[in-house]
Amino acid sequence: MYYFNNDYSEGAHKKILEALIKTNFEQCPGYGLDEHCQKAAELLKEKMGRNDVDVHFVSGGTQANKLCLAAFLRPHEAIICPDSGHINVHETGAVEASGHKIIAVRGKDGKILPEEILNVLAVHHDEHMVKPKAVFVTDATEIGTIYTLDELKVISKVCHENDLYLYLDGARLANALTAEGNDVSLADLANLTDAFYLGGTKNGLLFGEAIVIVNPSLKADFRYITKQNGAMLAKGRILGVQFTASLSDDLYLETAKHANMQAQKIQSALEELAVPLFIKTPTNQIFPIIENDKLTLLHESFVFSDWEKIDAEHTAVRFVCSWATKNEDVEALIATLRKLYAHQ
Amino acid sequence: MYYFNNDYSEGAHKKILEALIKTNFEQCPGYGLDEHCQKAAELLKEKMGRNDVDVHFVSGGTQANKLCLAAFLRPHEAIICPDSGHINVHETGAVEASGHKIIAVRGKDGKILPEEILNVLAVHHDEHMVKPKAVFVTDATEIGTIYTLDELKVISKVCHENDLYLYLDGARLANALTAEGNDVSLADLANLTDAFYLGGTKNGLLFGEAIVIVNPSLKADFRYITKQNGAMLAKGRILGVQFTASLSDDLYLETAKHANMQAQKIQSALEELAVPLFIKTPTNQIFPIIENDKLTLLHESFVFSDWEKIDAEHTAVRFVCSWATKNEDVEALIATLRKLYAHQ
Amino acid sequence: MYYFNNDYSEGAHKKILEALIKTNFEQCPGYGLDEHCQKAAELLKEKMGRNDVDVHFVSGGTQANKLCLAAFLRPHEAIICPDSGHINVHETGAVEASGHKIIAVRGKDGKILPEEILNVLAVHHDEHMVKPKAVFVTDATEIGTIYTLDELKVISKVCHENDLYLYLDGARLANALTAEGNDVSLADLANLTDAFYLGGTKNGLLFGEAIVIVNPSLKADFRYITKQNGAMLAKGRILGVQFTASLSDDLYLETAKHANMQAQKIQSALEELAVPLFIKTPTNQIFPIIENDKLTLLHESFVFSDWEKIDAEHTAVRFVCSWATKNEDVEALIATLRKLYAHQ
Amino acid sequence: MYYFNNDYSEGAHKKILEALIKTNFEQCPGYGLDEHCQKAAELLKEKMGRNDVDVHFVSGGTQANKLCLAAFLRPHEAIICPDSGHINVHETGAVEASGHKIIAVRGKDGKILPEEILNVLAVHHDEHMVKPKAVFVTDATEIGTIYTLDELKVISKVCHENDLYLYLDGARLANALTAEGNDVSLADLANLTDAFYLGGTKNGLLFGEAIVIVNPSLKADFRYITKQNGAMLAKGRILGVQFTASLSDDLYLETAKHANMQAQKIQSALEELAVPLFIKTPTNQIFPIIENDKLTLLHESFVFSDWEKIDAEHTAVRFVCSWATKNEDVEALIATLRKLYAHQ
Repeated sequence: MYYFNNDYSEGAHKKILEALIKTNFEQCPGYGLDEHCQKAAELLKEKMGRNDVDVHFVSGGTQANKLCLAAFLRPHEAIICPDSGHINVHETGAVEASGHKIIAVRGKDGKILPEEILNVLAVHHDEHMVKPKAVFVTDATEIGTIYTLDELKVISKVCHENDLYLYLDGARLANALTAEGNDVSLADLANLTDAFYLGGTKNGLLFGEAIVIVNPSLKADFRYITKQNGAMLAKGRILGVQFTASLSDDLYLETAKHANMQAQKIQSALEELAVPLFIKTPTNQIFPIIENDKLTLLHESFVFSDWEKIDAEHTAVRFVCSWATKNEDVEALIATLRKLYAHQ
Repeated sequence: MYYFNNDYSEGAHKKILEALIKTNFEQCPGYGLDEHCQKAAELLKEKMGRNDVDVHFVSGGTQANKLCLAAFLRPHEAIICPDSGHINVHETGAVEASGHKIIAVRGKDGKILPEEILNVLAVHHDEHMVKPKAVFVTDATEIGTIYTLDELKVISKVCHENDLYLYLDGARLANALTAEGNDVSLADLANLTDAFYLGGTKNGLLFGEAIVIVNPSLKADFRYITKQNGAMLAKGRILGVQFTASLSDDLYLETAKHANMQAQKIQSALEELAVPLFIKTPTNQIFPIIENDKLTLLHESFVFSDWEKIDAEHTAVRFVCSWATKNEDVEALIATLRKLYAHQ
Repeated sequence: MYYFNNDYSEGAHKKILEALIKTNFEQCPGYGLDEHCQKAAELLKEKMGRNDVDVHFVSGGTQANKLCLAAFLRPHEAIICPDSGHINVHETGAVEASGHKIIAVRGKDGKILPEEILNVLAVHHDEHMVKPKAVFVTDATEIGTIYTLDELKVISKVCHENDLYLYLDGARLANALTAEGNDVSLADLANLTDAFYLGGTKNGLLFGEAIVIVNPSLKADFRYITKQNGAMLAKGRILGVQFTASLSDDLYLETAKHANMQAQKIQSALEELAVPLFIKTPTNQIFPIIENDKLTLLHESFVFSDWEKIDAEHTAVRFVCSWATKNEDVEALIATLRKLYAHQ
Repeated sequence: MYYFNNDYSEGAHKKILEALIKTNFEQCPGYGLDEHCQKAAELLKEKMGRNDVDVHFVSGGTQANKLCLAAFLRPHEAIICPDSGHINVHETGAVEASGHKIIAVRGKDGKILPEEILNVLAVHHDEHMVKPKAVFVTDATEIGTIYTLDELKVISKVCHENDLYLYLDGARLANALTAEGNDVSLADLANLTDAFYLGGTKNGLLFGEAIVIVNPSLKADFRYITKQNGAMLAKGRILGVQFTASLSDDLYLETAKHANMQAQKIQSALEELAVPLFIKTPTNQIFPIIENDKLTLLHESFVFSDWEKIDAEHTAVRFVCSWATKNEDVEALIATLRKLYAHQ
């Protein structure tokens, strides 16, 4: 079988693993207070050109989102989020379990629209309703699209004018940063958001996300919140070692570029074959709409997700490539697609 | 410097690391639904002689405790716990953050006494007070002592007669199982508790704890609770791979025995030197009471924790050994202790 | 000014107040354990023809909803609710503050559709999403409509077939029970729901809602949850006294009928004048769509809420009548409406 | 039977009830935004000589405590409290249900000692433990004692020097203010605490507590927290009407004085009879230690609580007097005590 079902099927990139092996018997202080974590944080700060941000390393994306929103919000404060947002759909109510309502808006192509934020504010006017206090965006989005710098600037402006925090989920941020057409940088994110995280789990680490807190008023006591949520690893150095390796020589961009490139090969082939797309994306997730009988054939040799039923005869599916996706796997998939669609 | 400050200063045991390397490029399903997790669970069930328990792997001890108590208890239900219990002192209120009160009792040598449980029940008689519903014990305890089988049997009986769950925190369970004088087995724990976990983080894994749920009424939907708390690793296979290695050929006992043995050498030396002990333990944590001037000298070459101020001139300190503690480090410590105490 | 803005502008119905005065100096046990609460519970059980339900009295509707859902659900379990549902919009995230996600569906005329429930179930299939476990309905709904017995039967069937609790918010239940066209009885609610409450605050009491728990598996320890949420009145007898008065001689139906009747006079007048309705209702809330210039004139003499902007020139507004609404006030409103619409 | 079991056995003081009757048919805005609440708040501010505080009215003491601590604290922040504190013992874990740990200290005579606060701070030094952020005191305490102004000043100083909020539970504050030996005023409380509440439920109201928030940084959005916790009464005017009556002509002091006076008669009689006291108090709760055989006889005619078992033959009991306690009841109790103790 060939796997295109997600970007975390393998372990870690070779260089990440080597770094873990190399440092394995060093004795380090626990809980992320070691030199590797410090080094990784410095590397990330350099890339942003910012020394005034706080960096924290945690194990996964749901954890990062849960911690940040729990740390930043008072009990009655709510988060505005596109209805496709990971926190709204795929985190088993983690944010609500911390006591906060998510106000879902429709969004467009997985992205929130500035006017949707303003609409939410317009109808939340008194203490009988929750108080919108944060906006949640994802880049790349859950459906592989990316924000332009201009889009983020407008959203950031709306947030700051309305006393809302802008928080960016970057589970696939490196894929966005290396996508064709991207004009957003880590420095931009530090300027435009109050906090965001750079994902490692889906980009070649065993696991790990790097949370960046920019807004000074949100920094206090984040380590308390981390520990309280069971998110502080005893051997926190593992996160520091991995991120140091990933951020060195821009490995994190290289792994993301590889994933994007492999996925784009598939998307190009689909376009050539005139297979309709659910959405066209510049990153590592591809969403063709496939006839159900072809689907059955594809599933015989390839592992991938059915994304959304389009009609009785068509289904949008998702092919994901990763840092580890091999050329021969992509070629096998394209070859099969060509065969399936050649007869039409 | 020589490190005796905890049992998680290094990375992973060589065999654990090798297992990770060996399986690194296998493609596995995510979220702990892979064959490695299944294999590890089977190994653990075999050791208990029980096929009817549920096994879940998570990243750390605070996480394990938080998840279990959140999953098992209704909002008004409380946990009875010795006041030295990790959940009561060192988890930043993780249990309370899930909404549950901890009722702390004094305990003796880090262990809860059956009569303390009964006393708590006697004064909690109506709906103006929380409802005690679980008892929390740790083996080995936070101060290195261990429960005897008889002690656990009595506590278990009190729990079951009073409709209380018995939950055992096993962060250092392997150290207890391999301690001199221990007569408790994994099979006993499955018989006597409603749930417990076997710690890996402090026993040679990069990280990882294996939660065992015995009581059938507590099993439902544990994976939902895991995900909701941000505790479900995308690459859950990492936990399965590590535990499979640790549980194979009884590596988990070997690593724990090594830690105990190294610590016991230190304790024997202290006793020979007539250094008073805060508590005598059979496991991998040693608690001598040291004069403050000697303390200063010791801290120059050794990293360890001051545990509790005894009086103006004496402090109880803690030396911890681990699976990775080297002979030469132990010898260096003993040599220094001998030098310090020779002049008396 | 004439008040049509809500159904809680005045204090209590004369008979309620008299009952409070009459019993004021009786010495009663605290916390709802008094004879008045017992008597009120019995009266309510009689009306349902059910002795096997639990009845609890609390102070308000948000409190009733919050308590029930906190008591009934495990942390990862969610509530399906029409998006107009009070818990979704007007309770400041009280349900989320207890840790539970609300899954809002569109509904129709303020009522949930059975197929919406099934759709939610269809997409919530694993532990990465919350687990739908309860359905929330309101009768009369937030926009004054009522459920038919057949509608409730179908919803109840869907719930029970899918292991979902059916919970009914009855803040204006007496208005529904006495509405023209209603064919639902308290006995039906006991048969079809797992729990519901009968509202008193909006029906002539100073405050008070009577929660009825039908499903035996949901009854345990409700008083603990009540106390934990600060919802147990020391002088609980006040609730018992008021409900005993309200349930005696069917005062609760009389007060609700009065409210409905006054509102229906207004609705009839609006229809005569061909004023379009946002929705036609059989209860005590009336929702005409008014031109904005007429709105300004109406607001000069009448207090009422603007409900929803329809377009640049029209607004749906809400007139509410209560047990205390006077004939002359209704006549004044109708006279003004006639004057405003006469010139067209 | 004569009732001495608590201070909420009757309904409301005659003047409170009259105020409710007199204003019953006024039409008021809902949710505490009416003129009666405003008037009551102004009366209370006048008594403090402070215009810069926020006043909120809620239904009960547990509710007041829960709301304040939920509003003031971040998730990892904890409350230091004497172990007899109401939040620690008799609120079914309401504070923990909001996510916060209570750190209980022994206290002395129901009062917290400044050094206990400092001791807690000394051992809570990093993010592995909760962060102490508030101190909870009660005046009069749960065992009837009162704080002196000097005691409160020292505690307040310790709090402010250590960035801790001082919160005072005033369920029986009027009893403290009117106790013999009291030198604390409402103005002092406004100067020394960050927030406190003045209890009405135990002082002649049907129910109601007046929360005073002094610290400007704690004021924001309190009404959101109130609504979210189901603590905002639709007919909030009932609280305003009652407190306006209670605060007019110092009725609140008169009712409290009456309760204290009746209780002190009992305490004097006990002292005359040389009955030992569990604690001597200047307020409305009296705690004699009674032989168990006499206890049985007393319980035949009087309702009161057994407080604490002293030894196999003696029990500390509690007699409570209220604004409604009648002379003849007190005389009957004293006569019986005299008869019981005359034979010795």
